[in-house]
Amino acid sequence: MYSERMSAVKSSAIRDILKLMSRPGMISFAGGLPAPELFPVREIAAAADAVLKKYGAAAVQYSVTEGILPLREKIAAMLDPAGNQLSTENVIITQGSQQALDLLSKVFIDNGSAVLTENPTYLGALQAFQLFQANVTAVPSDNNGIDTTLLKKHLKQDKPRLVYVMPNFQNPTGLTYQLERRKELAKLAQEHDVIFIEDDPYGGLRFEGERLPSLFALAEGKNVVYLSSFSKTIAPGLRIAYAAGDAELLKKLVIAKQGTDLQTNTFGQYIVNEYLENGLYQKHVDLVTRTYRERRDAMLRSFERHFPASASWNKPAGGMFFWVRLADEVDTSALLMQCAEQNVAFVPGKEFFPDGSGRNTMRLNFTNATLPEIEEGIKRLGKVLKGAGV
Amino acid sequence: MYSERMSAVKSSAIRDILKLMSRPGMISFAGGLPAPELFPVREIAAAADAVLKKYGAAAVQYSVTEGILPLREKIAAMLDPAGNQLSTENVIITQGSQQALDLLSKVFIDNGSAVLTENPTYLGALQAFQLFQANVTAVPSDNNGIDTTLLKKHLKQDKPRLVYVMPNFQNPTGLTYQLERRKELAKLAQEHDVIFIEDDPYGGLRFEGERLPSLFALAEGKNVVYLSSFSKTIAPGLRIAYAAGDAELLKKLVIAKQGTDLQTNTFGQYIVNEYLENGLYQKHVDLVTRTYRERRDAMLRSFERHFPASASWNKPAGGMFFWVRLADEVDTSALLMQCAEQNVAFVPGKEFFPDGSGRNTMRLNFTNATLPEIEEGIKRLGKVLKGAGV
Repeated sequence: MYSERMSAVKSSAIRDILKLMSRPGMISFAGGLPAPELFPVREIAAAADAVLKKYGAAAVQYSVTEGILPLREKIAAMLDPAGNQLSTENVIITQGSQQALDLLSKVFIDNGSAVLTENPTYLGALQAFQLFQANVTAVPSDNNGIDTTLLKKHLKQDKPRLVYVMPNFQNPTGLTYQLERRKELAKLAQEHDVIFIEDDPYGGLRFEGERLPSLFALAEGKNVVYLSSFSKTIAPGLRIAYAAGDAELLKKLVIAKQGTDLQTNTFGQYIVNEYLENGLYQKHVDLVTRTYRERRDAMLRSFERHFPASASWNKPAGGMFFWVRLADEVDTSALLMQCAEQNVAFVPGKEFFPDGSGRNTMRLNFTNATLPEIEEGIKRLGKVLKGAGV
Repeated sequence: MYSERMSAVKSSAIRDILKLMSRPGMISFAGGLPAPELFPVREIAAAADAVLKKYGAAAVQYSVTEGILPLREKIAAMLDPAGNQLSTENVIITQGSQQALDLLSKVFIDNGSAVLTENPTYLGALQAFQLFQANVTAVPSDNNGIDTTLLKKHLKQDKPRLVYVMPNFQNPTGLTYQLERRKELAKLAQEHDVIFIEDDPYGGLRFEGERLPSLFALAEGKNVVYLSSFSKTIAPGLRIAYAAGDAELLKKLVIAKQGTDLQTNTFGQYIVNEYLENGLYQKHVDLVTRTYRERRDAMLRSFERHFPASASWNKPAGGMFFWVRLADEVDTSALLMQCAEQNVAFVPGKEFFPDGSGRNTMRLNFTNATLPEIEEGIKRLGKVLKGAGV
């Protein structure tokens, strides 16, 4: 009775965990939630009021599928300050980046089409691809991003329709691709004439080091679709994100979007546009970045104090996640329920591995807890790990 | 390079016409736009402000895929005032009703699955079904809705996964199903164990006559998914709509929605919830209904004054559209460009016929023009028709 695709897709374990974990007293490092206490609530209220005064009914009327023009202009200018490469035809507004993944899947994936991802990778991307019955192959990463030798092999052998990567502060590993790897990937996209999806929700949230050019910029917009969002830098509940890419390709996404939801919510688009117009954006991003860096550093210190010697972790240069690796024989899923009893939560890493590996890993979010909660939560977690003999 | 489905789908002719038709001086009866001058802009501004004060950051944070609980409670109570049948588990919030069509397609349609619709039917539904490569068969309607003799034949022969109907003030024909036909369809849904999608965007906008029970109510929620929206009764740019149905079926839609856009915009949900809480809704719907009835009546009078004797039309008891039929040999698409030159626009009816018929029909929206614009626009249109010897 249901479609075949529904047998391949499962509910997001993370969203299910989040539901379980919302009880009082729980310190959850499980979600990917930005810190709500930083949301510019007053400025959003002022922007909402201003756009209803300024544009009146147009701020809540139907609008074009592509997204409102002034917001697309600002995004084009953010991505290409010199204004040489991009126009509004290279930008569409999406209902969160998740929708861009849905639309790209619609436009490129047939039943059984090959898609390559990192291993591990973002769970929501896997869900989007699975809903279109893609044949997903996860290509292992080294410490500098997706392994290009293996990637080349799979590009030849699998002839994928899409390659999905997150070069900045990857979800779940926190990994960032260095410049040479980026150049290599931009070149591979051309050589194999395949579309790379560059998902960059956290790029603006860099704690240290120099900002690196996107694959999209390095490839001069060819064969790369760049996704980003205001969910992590303003507020996610507005659901305003965007895709940038080749104008002809975006026209296909627009056709798919017509049949999917007609358009992204007009009001949220005008609110974000107003917020950007008021020049509040970069200052706010700086505040968020500063706060998240403090939280990352606090979690690092807590790891050192409370985690067993067998645990290892990275130091993400931005974004929202730590990636922790335990001894090979440990199954973090089995530990989760014990942790929940101690009122602390994380996401078992294996959820992010299309190939089913990663049993001994976990993802910890550091942006949605205060400094004392981070210390207390990691202390609880360390106690469970040590108690389990990890 | 693109997926197969993209060759089946075309851009919405209506949205393309709307773009063309936005030049100054144009009187357009083409869109399906509600009257923006009626939007409760001040009340939306007040609700936006109130929810940010009341809920703070939670009003713009991530939320559950199903939609916020208080809004689902209110919708369940609207649909089932006695509270016997429905709970929040029977309601999910969608990003416009268009998204409900996308999610239902995802959950039920495999490549080549049969879907039955009315003939003519809503273009956006066709787009949604085509994006999942459904095999759509349009079942002719008589003056009382879809022809049940033919429908029974197709139910047996095609074994459809979905049957799509709009029993109130149908888009595009304005037609309303009478009670007996509704009962018959509710029974057929059970007998053939097939899912009927009952799309009801305009049900609240009834100009005269008694409100009739939904197929959903008549079928006691079994095998019918009921779709409605606040787009036509509050404002479409908030993109807040809902699907009501069997709890197990809705769980599948929720899984599909996770991979599609994670959730509907939180802010819009809270705004609609606040608006409903303030008890403003029914009074506003009454105002919209009264205004649209005046506009319908004005257009009727203008038809009588200006249209050629060969034209015939219905008298819709609610909703937003007139359906006009011209002599068999007329092709309304060919007339559209002449009309555009005279600064008046409509949608050629054949766009709505999956079987390619309906060349001599046109859809006219009466809600998005003032009374003088209606008279002037129909005068212009009548002149073109008569000039063309129609």
